[in-house]
Amino acid sequence: MTMEAFGEEFGEESSRWELGEDTEPGWMTDGELAETRGRVPMLYVEALPVRVEPSGRVSSVGLLLRGSSTTALITRSLVSGRVQHGERIRDALMRHLEKDLGPTAFPVLPVSTVPAAVAEYFPWPDRLQDPRQHAVALAFVVPVSGECQPRQDALEITWLTPEEAASDAIASDMEGGRGSLLRQLLHHAGAL
Amino acid sequence: MTMEAFGEEFGEESSRWELGEDTEPGWMTDGELAETRGRVPMLYVEALPVRVEPSGRVSSVGLLLRGSSTTALITRSLVSGRVQHGERIRDALMRHLEKDLGPTAFPVLPVSTVPAAVAEYFPWPDRLQDPRQHAVALAFVVPVSGECQPRQDALEITWLTPEEAASDAIASDMEGGRGSLLRQLLHHAGAL
Amino acid sequence: MTMEAFGEEFGEESSRWELGEDTEPGWMTDGELAETRGRVPMLYVEALPVRVEPSGRVSSVGLLLRGSSTTALITRSLVSGRVQHGERIRDALMRHLEKDLGPTAFPVLPVSTVPAAVAEYFPWPDRLQDPRQHAVALAFVVPVSGECQPRQDALEITWLTPEEAASDAIASDMEGGRGSLLRQLLHHAGAL
Amino acid sequence: MTMEAFGEEFGEESSRWELGEDTEPGWMTDGELAETRGRVPMLYVEALPVRVEPSGRVSSVGLLLRGSSTTALITRSLVSGRVQHGERIRDALMRHLEKDLGPTAFPVLPVSTVPAAVAEYFPWPDRLQDPRQHAVALAFVVPVSGECQPRQDALEITWLTPEEAASDAIASDMEGGRGSLLRQLLHHAGAL
Repeated sequence: MTMEAFGEEFGEESSRWELGEDTEPGWMTDGELAETRGRVPMLYVEALPVRVEPSGRVSSVGLLLRGSSTTALITRSLVSGRVQHGERIRDALMRHLEKDLGPTAFPVLPVSTVPAAVAEYFPWPDRLQDPRQHAVALAFVVPVSGECQPRQDALEITWLTPEEAASDAIASDMEGGRGSLLRQLLHHAGAL
Repeated sequence: MTMEAFGEEFGEESSRWELGEDTEPGWMTDGELAETRGRVPMLYVEALPVRVEPSGRVSSVGLLLRGSSTTALITRSLVSGRVQHGERIRDALMRHLEKDLGPTAFPVLPVSTVPAAVAEYFPWPDRLQDPRQHAVALAFVVPVSGECQPRQDALEITWLTPEEAASDAIASDMEGGRGSLLRQLLHHAGAL
Repeated sequence: MTMEAFGEEFGEESSRWELGEDTEPGWMTDGELAETRGRVPMLYVEALPVRVEPSGRVSSVGLLLRGSSTTALITRSLVSGRVQHGERIRDALMRHLEKDLGPTAFPVLPVSTVPAAVAEYFPWPDRLQDPRQHAVALAFVVPVSGECQPRQDALEITWLTPEEAASDAIASDMEGGRGSLLRQLLHHAGAL
Repeated sequence: MTMEAFGEEFGEESSRWELGEDTEPGWMTDGELAETRGRVPMLYVEALPVRVEPSGRVSSVGLLLRGSSTTALITRSLVSGRVQHGERIRDALMRHLEKDLGPTAFPVLPVSTVPAAVAEYFPWPDRLQDPRQHAVALAFVVPVSGECQPRQDALEITWLTPEEAASDAIASDMEGGRGSLLRQLLHHAGAL
């Protein structure tokens, strides 16, 4: 039976609005995942990788470039993925950071699990959207000190100034209304 | 087929560790709910009702008294309940406040959905526990200005000073380790 | 000797960049105030008055209209004022809200004194500026449920949607770079 | 005329309740500092140094041991110091961390200047006290990854588990009621 990971890489990845699902082997079949998505909100973590000065001030912001399989568009996204059953929020955050940024990014996870923002995605038109599901993401700003080497479906990571990242041009490259979330995270960090 | 609401009132209510499940008609059967709980973390909201001085300082803290159907114990709990599919966090918070405190409590919901604390409950021994499931709760401190009339399974609401609420005696009356969460919320409010 | 209050109403009020100084009788003379401003950062509170739906969602945002005595311009500002020696942050916030919005605004002060944003104003060009001083303001989003009747030097209060308030046109009406702070507060409230 | 730095090292250091004043050359004389302290609240930063696991979870907490010059007691304290005129909060935080922990502590400053707690000290009996002044401190939890070598008046730094740090014994070793602030910071970090 097709496993969640397989389904997400080859099937659901075609969704234009995906939240950047993980491809670690899961225990739900495609059918079970679809079924669960119709029953309850799905819990996600999202992270905005940043480079900081020694004082903690954000100097640049990392956005992932991903190709959409349904359109010719390249989209920009945050680090993002689902919290699995039995997994701690910190562990989910670390897992998705490593998955999306590679093993040498050296992210510094926040000491508190209270997020910088809570993002609510709905499968119908709303401020934030995800056509697959109702998802609630705990979003964090995460300094990285090492070298980022995007893996899996991310083509590359681009580093922008906070002002560039907050521009309308970048917002229009992000799916599901995430440009708004990005600005919220930048404001949280006092970077605008 | 038995609906979730029915199941929770008459079946699962017997759980000593319950999170204060809602009894609004849901669309999951008992079996579907149990199935879902084994697949993904369940999203909850929790609220600590407080009375405040005009300056915002917390003067007293409301805890619900509930009888446990499995033991002879009376337990103390926060307002708590599940976020349903398609439901906003704000709406879930309001629904559970009204359900647990009655229609005349006049809660003042926070302007931000960033919670005061994030509580992670696991079905195995951990800091916070819920034997039924892996649950992640967004927890808020909510001032109420009206009269609270607990409904449903809550026997009554008792008002304590912040210091009384933070005592070991109260912590031992709370299930699943929630005494620790209660102290975290009181500290968040600067009430200790 | 001219008291602080007098000095601020008739003297310093002419500053185009003022933080909205209080006119309660203080104990510093003009000279002492100027001297102190050259020695240490001055502590302020600022508040964005908002109207909220029962769910806590921000529906409109109140900005004060003030005439500048040095220019022909009408500027828009937040509720703002200094924390006095021996005064609690909560009490300073309540005092300035009542001073700027009148006695029937019925503001609901936050339960936590941890601010939504920390604003640093410098007397030289920077993100936020105040030509009179180095000031650090703890900024809050404060729901009001009553009628606002601006007093003192504020001409009136205007209510805008969050989107209108976040516009470039409004930002250009605000002094010292506060348009950026306003957006930060709106994002904190999840209103954008 | 005796400069602030000199005064603080040899004069005010005798205060039992001091906030851990800096000894960098300042521009206020003893008299000017005392005068200013009687006029306005003084702005401070405080930091709780912590060691964290890769996931961000706090594993241990660093408290400074300082001898009191007025009593025979050894007291425990946080990193703490004044924000100077014209100095950014981030820079003040970095300066005091380096001053108290040495140059090889490698603190990771928070990306946001919104503090974990706001501490209000009054010169009269209150929850938090500082007999010298009314002080408002922005308090942060700061992970350190290097080696801490306390300098100046701090005898040493001791590392405790979060539970040990939250004990009544430790609280009674801290001056001005800071045991309460310490617990608030530990709860903020979800470490209790």
